[in-house]
Amino acid sequence: MVYFAEHHTAGRHFLQIPGPSNVPDRVLRALDNPTMDHRGPDFGKLGARVLEKTKKIFNTESHVIIYPASGTGAWEAALVNTLSPGDKVLMCETGWFAHLWEEMAGRLGLLTELLKTDWRRGADVEGIEARLRADKNHEIKAVAVVHNETSTGATSRINEVRRAIDAAGHPALLLVDTISSLGSVDYRHDEWGVDVTVSGSQKGLMLPPGLSFNAVSAKALKASETAKLTRSFWDWKPMIASNATGYFPYTPATNMLYALDTALDMLFEEGLDNVFARHDRHGEATRRAVRAWGLEVQCEDPRHYSPVLTAVRLPEGHSANALRATILKKFNMSLGNGLGQLNDRVFRIGHLGDFGDLQLVGTLGGVEMGLAAAGIPHKPGLAAAMQYLNGNG
Amino acid sequence: MVYFAEHHTAGRHFLQIPGPSNVPDRVLRALDNPTMDHRGPDFGKLGARVLEKTKKIFNTESHVIIYPASGTGAWEAALVNTLSPGDKVLMCETGWFAHLWEEMAGRLGLLTELLKTDWRRGADVEGIEARLRADKNHEIKAVAVVHNETSTGATSRINEVRRAIDAAGHPALLLVDTISSLGSVDYRHDEWGVDVTVSGSQKGLMLPPGLSFNAVSAKALKASETAKLTRSFWDWKPMIASNATGYFPYTPATNMLYALDTALDMLFEEGLDNVFARHDRHGEATRRAVRAWGLEVQCEDPRHYSPVLTAVRLPEGHSANALRATILKKFNMSLGNGLGQLNDRVFRIGHLGDFGDLQLVGTLGGVEMGLAAAGIPHKPGLAAAMQYLNGNG
Amino acid sequence: MVYFAEHHTAGRHFLQIPGPSNVPDRVLRALDNPTMDHRGPDFGKLGARVLEKTKKIFNTESHVIIYPASGTGAWEAALVNTLSPGDKVLMCETGWFAHLWEEMAGRLGLLTELLKTDWRRGADVEGIEARLRADKNHEIKAVAVVHNETSTGATSRINEVRRAIDAAGHPALLLVDTISSLGSVDYRHDEWGVDVTVSGSQKGLMLPPGLSFNAVSAKALKASETAKLTRSFWDWKPMIASNATGYFPYTPATNMLYALDTALDMLFEEGLDNVFARHDRHGEATRRAVRAWGLEVQCEDPRHYSPVLTAVRLPEGHSANALRATILKKFNMSLGNGLGQLNDRVFRIGHLGDFGDLQLVGTLGGVEMGLAAAGIPHKPGLAAAMQYLNGNG
Amino acid sequence: MVYFAEHHTAGRHFLQIPGPSNVPDRVLRALDNPTMDHRGPDFGKLGARVLEKTKKIFNTESHVIIYPASGTGAWEAALVNTLSPGDKVLMCETGWFAHLWEEMAGRLGLLTELLKTDWRRGADVEGIEARLRADKNHEIKAVAVVHNETSTGATSRINEVRRAIDAAGHPALLLVDTISSLGSVDYRHDEWGVDVTVSGSQKGLMLPPGLSFNAVSAKALKASETAKLTRSFWDWKPMIASNATGYFPYTPATNMLYALDTALDMLFEEGLDNVFARHDRHGEATRRAVRAWGLEVQCEDPRHYSPVLTAVRLPEGHSANALRATILKKFNMSLGNGLGQLNDRVFRIGHLGDFGDLQLVGTLGGVEMGLAAAGIPHKPGLAAAMQYLNGNG
Repeated sequence: MVYFAEHHTAGRHFLQIPGPSNVPDRVLRALDNPTMDHRGPDFGKLGARVLEKTKKIFNTESHVIIYPASGTGAWEAALVNTLSPGDKVLMCETGWFAHLWEEMAGRLGLLTELLKTDWRRGADVEGIEARLRADKNHEIKAVAVVHNETSTGATSRINEVRRAIDAAGHPALLLVDTISSLGSVDYRHDEWGVDVTVSGSQKGLMLPPGLSFNAVSAKALKASETAKLTRSFWDWKPMIASNATGYFPYTPATNMLYALDTALDMLFEEGLDNVFARHDRHGEATRRAVRAWGLEVQCEDPRHYSPVLTAVRLPEGHSANALRATILKKFNMSLGNGLGQLNDRVFRIGHLGDFGDLQLVGTLGGVEMGLAAAGIPHKPGLAAAMQYLNGNG
Repeated sequence: MVYFAEHHTAGRHFLQIPGPSNVPDRVLRALDNPTMDHRGPDFGKLGARVLEKTKKIFNTESHVIIYPASGTGAWEAALVNTLSPGDKVLMCETGWFAHLWEEMAGRLGLLTELLKTDWRRGADVEGIEARLRADKNHEIKAVAVVHNETSTGATSRINEVRRAIDAAGHPALLLVDTISSLGSVDYRHDEWGVDVTVSGSQKGLMLPPGLSFNAVSAKALKASETAKLTRSFWDWKPMIASNATGYFPYTPATNMLYALDTALDMLFEEGLDNVFARHDRHGEATRRAVRAWGLEVQCEDPRHYSPVLTAVRLPEGHSANALRATILKKFNMSLGNGLGQLNDRVFRIGHLGDFGDLQLVGTLGGVEMGLAAAGIPHKPGLAAAMQYLNGNG
Repeated sequence: MVYFAEHHTAGRHFLQIPGPSNVPDRVLRALDNPTMDHRGPDFGKLGARVLEKTKKIFNTESHVIIYPASGTGAWEAALVNTLSPGDKVLMCETGWFAHLWEEMAGRLGLLTELLKTDWRRGADVEGIEARLRADKNHEIKAVAVVHNETSTGATSRINEVRRAIDAAGHPALLLVDTISSLGSVDYRHDEWGVDVTVSGSQKGLMLPPGLSFNAVSAKALKASETAKLTRSFWDWKPMIASNATGYFPYTPATNMLYALDTALDMLFEEGLDNVFARHDRHGEATRRAVRAWGLEVQCEDPRHYSPVLTAVRLPEGHSANALRATILKKFNMSLGNGLGQLNDRVFRIGHLGDFGDLQLVGTLGGVEMGLAAAGIPHKPGLAAAMQYLNGNG
Repeated sequence: MVYFAEHHTAGRHFLQIPGPSNVPDRVLRALDNPTMDHRGPDFGKLGARVLEKTKKIFNTESHVIIYPASGTGAWEAALVNTLSPGDKVLMCETGWFAHLWEEMAGRLGLLTELLKTDWRRGADVEGIEARLRADKNHEIKAVAVVHNETSTGATSRINEVRRAIDAAGHPALLLVDTISSLGSVDYRHDEWGVDVTVSGSQKGLMLPPGLSFNAVSAKALKASETAKLTRSFWDWKPMIASNATGYFPYTPATNMLYALDTALDMLFEEGLDNVFARHDRHGEATRRAVRAWGLEVQCEDPRHYSPVLTAVRLPEGHSANALRATILKKFNMSLGNGLGQLNDRVFRIGHLGDFGDLQLVGTLGGVEMGLAAAGIPHKPGLAAAMQYLNGNG
């Protein structure tokens, strides 16, 4: 079976959506190992090792739950383990994914309150603090923030969110979605006092979709004892109990754990600081190309620029979807579409995961040729990116 | 990274637990294809094709939902999409997995009523009919049955359950768990009037764990409109809407869909009838060996013998877990443990999925040598299995 | 085991040497199928199918021998099957590989006569004709030409060589090395009257090294009956006899045949004309970049420009090897070195095999950044290539 | 592409020919790594490491040449590097492969003298000594012995051959073919004073076919300086020169070297002594089954029993080929055919390479069922093998 027949002529497909990211060969070769007995002694060693390694990527000493399910499930897990029907959650609408998470919270019977943004920046830290100060009765039980908003390319500053909550002296839990940031952007679950960190496998962790995570603080764990939302599959308690010996309460996604084991090795071998610096560098190179093209980066606040992806605005009257279709057809590259209110207005360039300089040059070159082919006014921009990549920026 | 280091000396590991089953090389080679854009045109074709093929294995013209999550999740999905808090569910305690499903139902806020068995046979069809007849007010909203009870090796007769419900003139939904039967045992979602069929990837479908399924009748779909249990990740509605064009509402487990696509091809190439006959034959051969050893098959009712696995009782005073440990260490074979009340009393031989006659001979030979090594009284038994396999039974 | 540890930080290695070329994932996944019984019935079908398909790529109806050996062996095979000790061979020294072939001929006991070039063009067709006309006694038994000289990037015109031999009315055999051209450049063994075409797996055929080929004309076959050079492993006769039923006289490289089977499918699916046009286009785009950089293409004769690779001359005083080392270290790309008299004077860019536009953009971008990093005077050149690739050249 | 379509219904194919042996998944996953630049720095490290490890398996401190060619080539290499046209070679006709090697020697222009056996034992050590003593003028330049004769399952005792040559005080080179023994049977190139050891990849080394070897003593190296047989591809000299830095004079079979690297790791991890003991044990278990069946082992001398394969004689009037066809069709197992004078008289059971006890049970069970299916008179035999395997033999 050939899965890329349609647009494939020759050469490797450029998968430059902001996740799933390109899965390294070495990870694919771990993934395809024969499935083992998830109750046998070999598994216990694998499980214990992977759980331990996974903590390092969240920078936590506490528990990390690994679900055999994709990232959306971990959103649900964070909510149902900590909250009760009718609980109020303060959410920061940084873009489409924050919006989806808020919709989910509503469907699960929570009352949500949205702090809006114009989708061109990260979470409104001052707004969070103000709202929490006003909540004298502590009706708000949790603050939920998307670390890296994949729809806009804006990375919120979680340490500042933490400080805002503390400044307001508010006991709300802090729930953070790092689905598209973990493994690409520095993240510190313990140091930043996050209560539940949600994540997924298919972005910075360089895996296929199919695993998701909750890192859980002691405070969140305590909250789970009284939380009344119904839960079974997502319940932390049996997970934590089984994980103590490296096992899981129900069948885990064994082959994905092989892949996670290897992907974490690769990240540690490169060195997390190097990984983060590489993503920063590719983000900056991309923004330089965008500006040189005469186009606008969707994220307006430089403090919130995403090292993971760059959403690019097209001039009025031009279709981002038509551009993406042209680039897919002519150059065998997939780019991310605009979501929600940004549909057809932006396209998104993923520069995350297993990604190197020359792949970025190919990616930006493909966009530049696509802009020309689609008749979108622009100036040359790749040279600016290359100059920066070459250390002469 | 080598995942079988502990017990591996040389030769292929015999993974004879009743699932995860052995994943064929061809499926592993589909699994490890590069992840693609799940919003791109190639994906839509893959999605549509896989959804269509999957229906055939359930024998349904209705919807099949594919979750990027392991089988336990599909249990939860079947319940939360069709029922409301406090609804009564009649469940058939055929063994450990039926017990776990019942526990889950309780945790989700349902009232469960158990029809007990002695764990040595399938569901009590007469009991179901009697209980439903007695339920004049139709308080029971659903009947839940495990098709193939993986803890005991008993396969319930779902068509008889259907007739019992009909005979009682009861409107309860029929929920069936086929996690360990689908793809190994004949199953007819539409013909047997099942409302929700639950399944998973890692048994008869010859995939790693990580996908699960709900096949959904029109009646179940209607029930979902008024069902009040909270749900979001498991919600059928957005799934069915997106599936219409081959896509999914949130990131699917793309690589597992590649693998599913290939595994279904393999089953259809062999021919489902041949696949089922093969499993039947291996079940019978195994039971002949067990009897010749002088041991007892856990399932006592020949109509309920499982073609998927055989649970074998050890004589009093002998430890099944010690036997399994001996066999793993000496012969590099994993067998299933006894669960719940059967812990240490039975061991389970999986003979499902991608499995051939000589693998069965190796498997039964390994058990026979293990019995001797562990000092468990027995007579030679493999010869009886071989005679049957060779068509001289 | 990780094979790219040294220079790998993240992202895929750019293997832009002129072979081995990048092996497509699909071919690697064929390569890693379990080895089969090379005397069993399944093998016979595979063998027959692969032999038949292979003929198409040579454009021959005659025999193609597949050796379980790398390309250098097929050079030897061409000589030992057709010639006798002391036979005179006219060879065209188009570059390093022609030189190596000539050395080999000498070691095997043949008398070689070299038609020299300046290594900046293909074979000297007029020179061949003149020399053959002078050879009244037909002492010259074979003319040997390298179709695509991998050391210089010059593609000789084999049809013109054929006409030259015919014009001279000379009976010499025509031996052609297509190791780096087959599958990338149009080639017609029968139509051009070639007697032995030599080739290998690791270039246009998109395979790892390990297979090599002789396509054999009726005239060559006849010559082999009287040829006196000793041979056994390379002997065509038992090969042709066994091949008739799809088998081989000694153990073939089974897994490489799986890979060849798949690689040929991929070439035929793309369409050979499209494959050749793609290589032409990438060659022209590369040369435009080179010229824009202000550098010189090693091949001076536009009729001989290679669609497979481009050798680029550096200005006096600059080291091509230092440049290549810089590019490998900084940008994780391997380029070809200069060979023989061109050592350190040229570097070679491979643009062959499984290769697409954006990979070429990344490749040329890497060279351009490398030129800057190594302090080699140049102007921007990538833009010229992109303009051409985009159809505005 | 599916390569086992014909006889495959389900389950893994049992490849029980005496090579190619079953390639472990881990080796296949090394094999399918992306091909690298064979002139780049990463390759040099790989090459040096693999060359060093390979010496250990031959038990030599001297040179081991690795050819990118299958085993037959290494036969040729051993002869053409050490001998001159018309040289006399004393060869021991232990079976079909010894016969083929002798034929090759003849084709290469050597004079061969055969020490015949009845194909039911190893080399005639006394015969060798006697013949060499009679060769007063030292006309015999080399003695060639097949260590493990794959056609008969007889393992010659090379240390005794060495002693015989020494006892005769004869200067002949000792050439030994270990194609089907290396990695399965203890072998000591240096200690036993072998001059050229020939081997291949696809047997005990657990690789696909495609690599072959010459281990070379100082005496052989000296002989190569004056040997006059023509050679180029097989020439040791440039190999040894390039190998000094981990490289090869022409393109090596890179992906096979990845696989070799991993396969050697696996052998060393198991421990060579354990590997040899495992093969011995499987050989003995097999012979016990054969005898219990009432059939005859082809090898009559217990000192020469092969740990690698067992050739089994069928009673007069029964066709071994028909039996093999039945077993392939009914049980998806490939067995080795009888070669030369043994065609249709014996079948051969391979029990080498990556092979465990339960695979052997499946293998012998398949033979036993096949004997019944084919109507060949026999008694039960598997039980005897199992008893031995279980340590109660």
